[in-house]
Amino acid sequence: MSHAVDKDTRLCISLSGRPSNIGTRFHNHLYEALGLNFLYKAFTTDDLPGAITGVRALGIRGCGVSMPFKEACIPFLDALDPSAAGLQSVNTIVNDGGRLTGHNTDYRAVRSLVDSHAVPRDLSFALRGSGGMARAVLCALRDAGFADGTVVARNAETGRRLAEEYGLRWQADTTDLKPGLLVNVTPLGMANGPDAAALAFDPALIGAAAWVFDVVAMPAETPLIRAARAAGKPVITGAEVIALQALEQFVLYTGVRPTDAQVAAAAAHSRAG
Amino acid sequence: MSHAVDKDTRLCISLSGRPSNIGTRFHNHLYEALGLNFLYKAFTTDDLPGAITGVRALGIRGCGVSMPFKEACIPFLDALDPSAAGLQSVNTIVNDGGRLTGHNTDYRAVRSLVDSHAVPRDLSFALRGSGGMARAVLCALRDAGFADGTVVARNAETGRRLAEEYGLRWQADTTDLKPGLLVNVTPLGMANGPDAAALAFDPALIGAAAWVFDVVAMPAETPLIRAARAAGKPVITGAEVIALQALEQFVLYTGVRPTDAQVAAAAAHSRAG
Repeated sequence: MSHAVDKDTRLCISLSGRPSNIGTRFHNHLYEALGLNFLYKAFTTDDLPGAITGVRALGIRGCGVSMPFKEACIPFLDALDPSAAGLQSVNTIVNDGGRLTGHNTDYRAVRSLVDSHAVPRDLSFALRGSGGMARAVLCALRDAGFADGTVVARNAETGRRLAEEYGLRWQADTTDLKPGLLVNVTPLGMANGPDAAALAFDPALIGAAAWVFDVVAMPAETPLIRAARAAGKPVITGAEVIALQALEQFVLYTGVRPTDAQVAAAAAHSRAG
Repeated sequence: MSHAVDKDTRLCISLSGRPSNIGTRFHNHLYEALGLNFLYKAFTTDDLPGAITGVRALGIRGCGVSMPFKEACIPFLDALDPSAAGLQSVNTIVNDGGRLTGHNTDYRAVRSLVDSHAVPRDLSFALRGSGGMARAVLCALRDAGFADGTVVARNAETGRRLAEEYGLRWQADTTDLKPGLLVNVTPLGMANGPDAAALAFDPALIGAAAWVFDVVAMPAETPLIRAARAAGKPVITGAEVIALQALEQFVLYTGVRPTDAQVAAAAAHSRAG
């Protein structure tokens, strides 16, 4: 860093079960580019209440929250932003003078992207997945005005429960579906995973769809995104989601909104780690 | 820093009522010089138990402790090193996998300096001061073998109590004293203080003494140290104390002992801030 750490440097951290370097590289790159006296550092913990007590007591300005702490942190906060309250899932804690507010910038990023891409709200959608991020995406889609959808998940218990929560249908697979919007929120196509080469939806469904949205961020061009582009379909990528959610987090912590070019450079730097 | 912060970077912090940049600059300068993936940052807190809970929960490797937390932190630690146990005062917390041990490197530094300078133990001493640092110095002098001394303090209550604790005499001033070792642990002569120009002991006492020890670290050459050098007396300076206590803290945190030249460079860098 060009900035030396001093007594006035504000610390932001993350808490996750398995810390990565992505957030650290993204945030510190932007602090340096913008000349902000901030510092970001990833942590894990086996004492979540103690870690959040420490955030408050040490005046740590912000705290990113990943698996498995997104729901568990809520009892230790003072307030929830609407982005987190509906979901009951927090990925960002902002500390204003000892008052901790939980936000969900994944939710915000998805809502913002379906707006900025002007995805038609009357499309029926099929969302594959039933984990925590699937819930955040479903909640954002519902709140954005998407009413007609199907949760596709092999796990009947979590899939059915999630579908019921949002007044949607559940299916174990895509039989008989003709969705206008395909949404993948599973690890299918994720780099270095067991299903890195897998296509999250059949080519026939991709060909029949109007829009394709893949939440997988690594690689930026997943098999699903590549197939959709090849079929001439407009897409929303996981790389857009992860960059936008990190940007929203950055703005919440610092009050400063970087330019698109600065965000793109920081996102590229964070992926290069 | 040349080192980018990453997920493996170990954080050390300090807790004090009024954070300065001195420790931050000293430790970060040495981390960089030695290529250690560590980072140091000063904090204050209005919730000491919460801050120490955070040190443990976040796996913060070490924590410097200054006024007003040196005694107050003890109930929240798991063990005290002998350097802190006798004094019941902690200036350094080391976190070994969640087990917190309190040390006192001020005590260690004073003991080490009277050894390395080979100050004769049969000298009678006069120690001016009655605060927490005066107690640390008295405890170190006693444990090093100095038995004959007088506490000189205008505050009769704290001065008399401190003298009794160490089996010494108390006087409000230096009347009739002929000490071989003069020790100043008051702010007399401290830069930017109300008594910056004050000489902590009369010139006649300096002329009659064999050794002079000033705990005031800023400036490195206090009026007392200058007068002692002018009178040809050997001295121990506060700059030596502060550099050595910080070095001992550094070694406790990192397990690495820098060279004298590296320590001198870091100390000069920390004072230049």
